[in-house]
Amino acid sequence: MRILIKNIDEIHSSGTKVRQEQFILIEDNKIKRIDKMTKIDEISDYDRIIDADGMIALPGFINTHTHAAMTLMRAYADDMPLDQWLQNKIWPFESKIKPDDIYWGTALAVVEMIKTGTTTFSDMYFAVDKIAEIVDQSGMRAVLSEGLIEANDGQEGLKKSLNYALKYNNSAEGRIKTMMAPHAPYTCGRDYLLQIKELARENNLGLHIHLSESKNEVNNFLQQYQKSPIKYLADLDFFDDNHILAAHCVHLEAGDLEILKEKNVHVAHNPMSNAKLANGIAPVREYLKNEINVALGTDGVSSNNSLAMLKEAKMASYLQKIKYQDPTAVDTKSMLKILTVNGAEALGIKKLGLLEENQLADLLLIDTKKDSFFYPHHNNLSNLFYAADSRSIDTVIIDGKVIMESSELKRLDQEKIFYEAEKRALKIAANFN
Amino acid sequence: MRILIKNIDEIHSSGTKVRQEQFILIEDNKIKRIDKMTKIDEISDYDRIIDADGMIALPGFINTHTHAAMTLMRAYADDMPLDQWLQNKIWPFESKIKPDDIYWGTALAVVEMIKTGTTTFSDMYFAVDKIAEIVDQSGMRAVLSEGLIEANDGQEGLKKSLNYALKYNNSAEGRIKTMMAPHAPYTCGRDYLLQIKELARENNLGLHIHLSESKNEVNNFLQQYQKSPIKYLADLDFFDDNHILAAHCVHLEAGDLEILKEKNVHVAHNPMSNAKLANGIAPVREYLKNEINVALGTDGVSSNNSLAMLKEAKMASYLQKIKYQDPTAVDTKSMLKILTVNGAEALGIKKLGLLEENQLADLLLIDTKKDSFFYPHHNNLSNLFYAADSRSIDTVIIDGKVIMESSELKRLDQEKIFYEAEKRALKIAANFN
Ligand SMILES: [Zn+2]
Ligand SMILES: [Zn+2]
Repeated sequence: MRILIKNIDEIHSSGTKVRQEQFILIEDNKIKRIDKMTKIDEISDYDRIIDADGMIALPGFINTHTHAAMTLMRAYADDMPLDQWLQNKIWPFESKIKPDDIYWGTALAVVEMIKTGTTTFSDMYFAVDKIAEIVDQSGMRAVLSEGLIEANDGQEGLKKSLNYALKYNNSAEGRIKTMMAPHAPYTCGRDYLLQIKELARENNLGLHIHLSESKNEVNNFLQQYQKSPIKYLADLDFFDDNHILAAHCVHLEAGDLEILKEKNVHVAHNPMSNAKLANGIAPVREYLKNEINVALGTDGVSSNNSLAMLKEAKMASYLQKIKYQDPTAVDTKSMLKILTVNGAEALGIKKLGLLEENQLADLLLIDTKKDSFFYPHHNNLSNLFYAADSRSIDTVIIDGKVIMESSELKRLDQEKIFYEAEKRALKIAANFN
Repeated sequence: MRILIKNIDEIHSSGTKVRQEQFILIEDNKIKRIDKMTKIDEISDYDRIIDADGMIALPGFINTHTHAAMTLMRAYADDMPLDQWLQNKIWPFESKIKPDDIYWGTALAVVEMIKTGTTTFSDMYFAVDKIAEIVDQSGMRAVLSEGLIEANDGQEGLKKSLNYALKYNNSAEGRIKTMMAPHAPYTCGRDYLLQIKELARENNLGLHIHLSESKNEVNNFLQQYQKSPIKYLADLDFFDDNHILAAHCVHLEAGDLEILKEKNVHVAHNPMSNAKLANGIAPVREYLKNEINVALGTDGVSSNNSLAMLKEAKMASYLQKIKYQDPTAVDTKSMLKILTVNGAEALGIKKLGLLEENQLADLLLIDTKKDSFFYPHHNNLSNLFYAADSRSIDTVIIDGKVIMESSELKRLDQEKIFYEAEKRALKIAANFN
């Protein structure tokens, strides 16, 4: 299958100057050629053509940390103190969620992610088989991991989690990768952490973990172990010989930054969630300056309450400007990098996150003519990140397949997903009314 | 003209419990009746009917501080140090803007405001006659003021500004109100401030001013006058016997809060602009606790870069949660109030900002079925503020007239406005390339 995208106004991709008046030729799941429109006559063999006149192309957004099925709890509980929110609302609700509910909750998330420009997501939740099923059907790319809490999951959960990881890794024509996921250093004991780490290493799977999310977590570690959670994991050799994806990393103690850098830890930054739960602002500019790979995530919808990466990106940039009292902090070029190629690197997926020849064909076409957001056209990238919203996202291509066109989903039955997710979520909530 | 809106799922309005399964009858520019659907048969005389099945109704959003025509500079300069941004980019560009450009720049802003749910805006800019013209044509409600900078405008500008204020006050069937607008205490001298204040008082016009926006401004006043800008104005009696709309109020010194409260100063909070320019986070929760009226604004697009009040509201709430390290800070009910009735009060417009009988008929219908953002329907207000974007805004009614329906503008030629605003903005920018 060869798709020719013609008349692209601009191509934006990290590390490359903006290219104008271009075409992109996709062959199977890869980008075969990118060139000037003046050379399009050299292409004669293709199956379909897309006219991108008035549009810009950029790599699809990569959401490096979420719990997709938590859409079921969107707006179920907001603006509450953290302990009440978890103990009285989130945990009781979660205890009633069945695997089929996870299928439909994840499907709802996938609809929203595609519509808002995400082409790859990294998930930590339960019932990975159900999640893999909807990812396969939807055409999305994903990195799936089963979150392990020692007291709940123990050895049996660990075994199941490893089986899923091995079963689904490289499934769905290679669109699904898997990781192991000890939930956090405070929900998994030392031996359990090391056991998971060793299994991940043996099977060449990455590790996905929550780390230094709240001031409370850090203070508890300082009190109990006289060291930060990051230093605690480093001293366990948890970071060694593994690909590490650490969500949050909001609060650093002295020496932590150096550990993250030395151990090549990839940071999934979740500015909306960190704001909503009042955890603070992660030192993203420091990460970038120190060449620590930092990517973006939404976290679960119950602490956001959106999966839209454009919202996340604007928040990320504006919070850094506030944190460092510097309007130059995290500019639009840095944001493009954080949203795309840094995400691919954080997830350990090769040939992803750039619009270049021989890369995976995951890309967005953004309509810059339809809505006010792009007028005047002084700077399309700035207009996209600082002014636009999801209505400007016209086309989503993942792994060389057209997943959305004219803002309409091509593979999923949106109405059915809305109906099933809603029915199940309201039924669970009714238990507690 | 009587418009009957039937089958409204929920009505949200500050200070009233959510009402379900309602109708609203609009007569001319007012809300004549709100009642349960079970009573709709009592209404027989109406000119048109709107079916709001699947929708919620709430008062239109009120943007209390902007410089609408600055859309011409959207994305013209971003992520720059403040002094370079102003001196090398914004001011040179502004010096080339002609009155007709202001008409088209404001028209572009009006398109975006309507599409994103704003029904009233409060503007401070130049060429108020041009701005009044597009407000009149568009059907929007607005409070207009000509910004006065003493060195540029002097006595002649002041005279012109007063003439405009008197000419356009209560024009466009009463949709336009006017204020006087000394730009800021650091751009207008003491005598000039007092002169403007006195003219405003004599003519029963409010005052719109920038105040305590940056740390720098406050520090300069402390150095020069040994008092904060707020104390400086209070000591001039600037706040006395006038309706005061003060934009920003980010940085307070000891005693400032008490002055704002005692003098009944209305605060226009601009969280996006304050973040983008790295000015900080205003103490909104303190204002609310102390019953100081605080409303929301976007400021000009060049420091935002959007006019979407839903984005502004989410930012406002999440920044307060960060500032006070408290996830309960500024919840969705507070946000509804800030976006609607507090805005009306800040602008001194009576019978605006609530969905109640005998209020002005400025309201939104939000489609909660079409997009993923409202699924599941645990809480529509939370889904609107924390998850939705402009695609869910279906209908905008201002002063009893349907201004947008099915997300399509009814009065303005959007394509022409995009074309004219773009042409003019790019032509001005070309001077500096
Ligand atoms: Zn998480
Ligand atoms: Zn302003």
